[in-house]
Amino acid sequence: MKPSAYQVWSGAVLSQVEQALEAWVPADAPAGLGDAMRYGVLDGGKRLRALLAMAAAEAAGALATPAGRDAALRAASAVELIHAYSLVHDDLPCMDNDVLRRGKPTVHVEFGEAQAMLAGDAMQALAFEVLTPDTDGPSGATAVPLALQARLCRLLARAAGHAGMAGGQAIDLASVGHALNQTALRDMHRRKTGALLCASVLMGAACADLASDTAAWRALTVYGEAMGLAFQIVDDVLDVTQSADTLGKTAGKDADANKPTYVSLLGLDEARTEARRLLDQALSALQDSGLESGACAPLRALAERIVHRDH
Amino acid sequence: MKPSAYQVWSGAVLSQVEQALEAWVPADAPAGLGDAMRYGVLDGGKRLRALLAMAAAEAAGALATPAGRDAALRAASAVELIHAYSLVHDDLPCMDNDVLRRGKPTVHVEFGEAQAMLAGDAMQALAFEVLTPDTDGPSGATAVPLALQARLCRLLARAAGHAGMAGGQAIDLASVGHALNQTALRDMHRRKTGALLCASVLMGAACADLASDTAAWRALTVYGEAMGLAFQIVDDVLDVTQSADTLGKTAGKDADANKPTYVSLLGLDEARTEARRLLDQALSALQDSGLESGACAPLRALAERIVHRDH
Repeated sequence: MKPSAYQVWSGAVLSQVEQALEAWVPADAPAGLGDAMRYGVLDGGKRLRALLAMAAAEAAGALATPAGRDAALRAASAVELIHAYSLVHDDLPCMDNDVLRRGKPTVHVEFGEAQAMLAGDAMQALAFEVLTPDTDGPSGATAVPLALQARLCRLLARAAGHAGMAGGQAIDLASVGHALNQTALRDMHRRKTGALLCASVLMGAACADLASDTAAWRALTVYGEAMGLAFQIVDDVLDVTQSADTLGKTAGKDADANKPTYVSLLGLDEARTEARRLLDQALSALQDSGLESGACAPLRALAERIVHRDH
Repeated sequence: MKPSAYQVWSGAVLSQVEQALEAWVPADAPAGLGDAMRYGVLDGGKRLRALLAMAAAEAAGALATPAGRDAALRAASAVELIHAYSLVHDDLPCMDNDVLRRGKPTVHVEFGEAQAMLAGDAMQALAFEVLTPDTDGPSGATAVPLALQARLCRLLARAAGHAGMAGGQAIDLASVGHALNQTALRDMHRRKTGALLCASVLMGAACADLASDTAAWRALTVYGEAMGLAFQIVDDVLDVTQSADTLGKTAGKDADANKPTYVSLLGLDEARTEARRLLDQALSALQDSGLESGACAPLRALAERIVHRDH
């Protein structure tokens, strides 16, 4: 069977991202720290955030120059590093106490709790290192402009911190056993997973120097926010409908822990309907964005896959 | 008794830094996260890193303009946020399991382990947020130039990550009960505490747009590295000579844990001599730096205090 255009595109992108992470996550960090970092980052996951960053960079026209490609690859790697660090910390005994991730023992099971915490901490710092290459360095002509470095750091820091991912995790932590209404649940997910997914899109777009007061930037923000939410809704649906084998992690975990989810709040059918509504919203935003339609193909394909995935 | 020039200078600087942190560490972060972050950052510690950043900014001439003062205050706050997050994580049961810090219960004792880990994670992200203010924002005329934002993020990320603080902590973790020679001990401390102390100095200097190929930058690097090491040696000395009451934390802890220290390696007298040698090295570097001697007074006073402090 002939691979689809999306499969060709994503295959090439994933191979570039893995190579970049392979090069940037240090093998020689001291006392086993590098091994723990690489175990937590490399060769794992769907790389959805990296794909969103690269697809948005493509849509906005950033990949036409070597400098734009370098910047986009750094943005894609940085969001994956933040995502990977959050999983390492999330899996620790004091948080979710998960022993299985992507079908492998979690980092703290393999390297101990202290090393896992340090590896996560170092991965967050590394994300910002990757975004701020030394312009006097060997990268020479493809160096990322300093203004873009600053903009990428700003987008990433806000998405990762108290207003974004870490804040969402705090709400999640406090919500176990509590009834959240849909507004509160949305707020939690907008921060916990939505902020970084949306930042992935915007960081990719920033690599094309897309200004934040343009219709295209606003459209990509709508796309990013809709996909951020849809991703979590589908996650909740899969958590109750799929086996651990398919997911590569412990299934039914959220329901067991009496955590509020879209499924517990809306029911299965309504949750699926909401995910499809968000898909339509994202696709409409792209259509009205003024961005070249062909260049938006990877973003469209990703949106379909986020909503219609089975793991 | 009339306060010394240094006391007047540091009093004013500390009040500015506390005000800045008070404003930037969010009270409204969700689900208790803001409370845990503020508990871990505000109203505590000697603020040595902030003082070094501001003193270096003064030496390099950054404090002459409102824009330079804004940038220096952001650099000073960012290094304190990184330092504070490292203490919160370091105190966790899976690391040092400390229950007392600055005479108060540690963050995880007060807020629980999961919240303490999240607060530390959010504090690291906040450090990079503070360094990347939105130039379209209300700060207007005093906004930090984007090129400087990028340079500050680069210096901080490298000092905090695997090549710096996190790497040093990994070596520390692996070294318990092992004999380290002086080279290995130096390497550990250069990363664990030295990298961030040195970055504090260089980030302050960067606020004056001091180029990294100048004699002044090189002199400040020598100063920062010497003080980074001296600080740790004096810490080791105080750990065996002072009571918990004076230190505001558990004393004799490192010796009890059979961790290698400068005192266990060199003996008390030799460790003190080494600290004084590093002080001389730092002061000589300042003298030969080409920086205006009067403007270097706070850096000189800080060096004396780092080596001659009793807590």
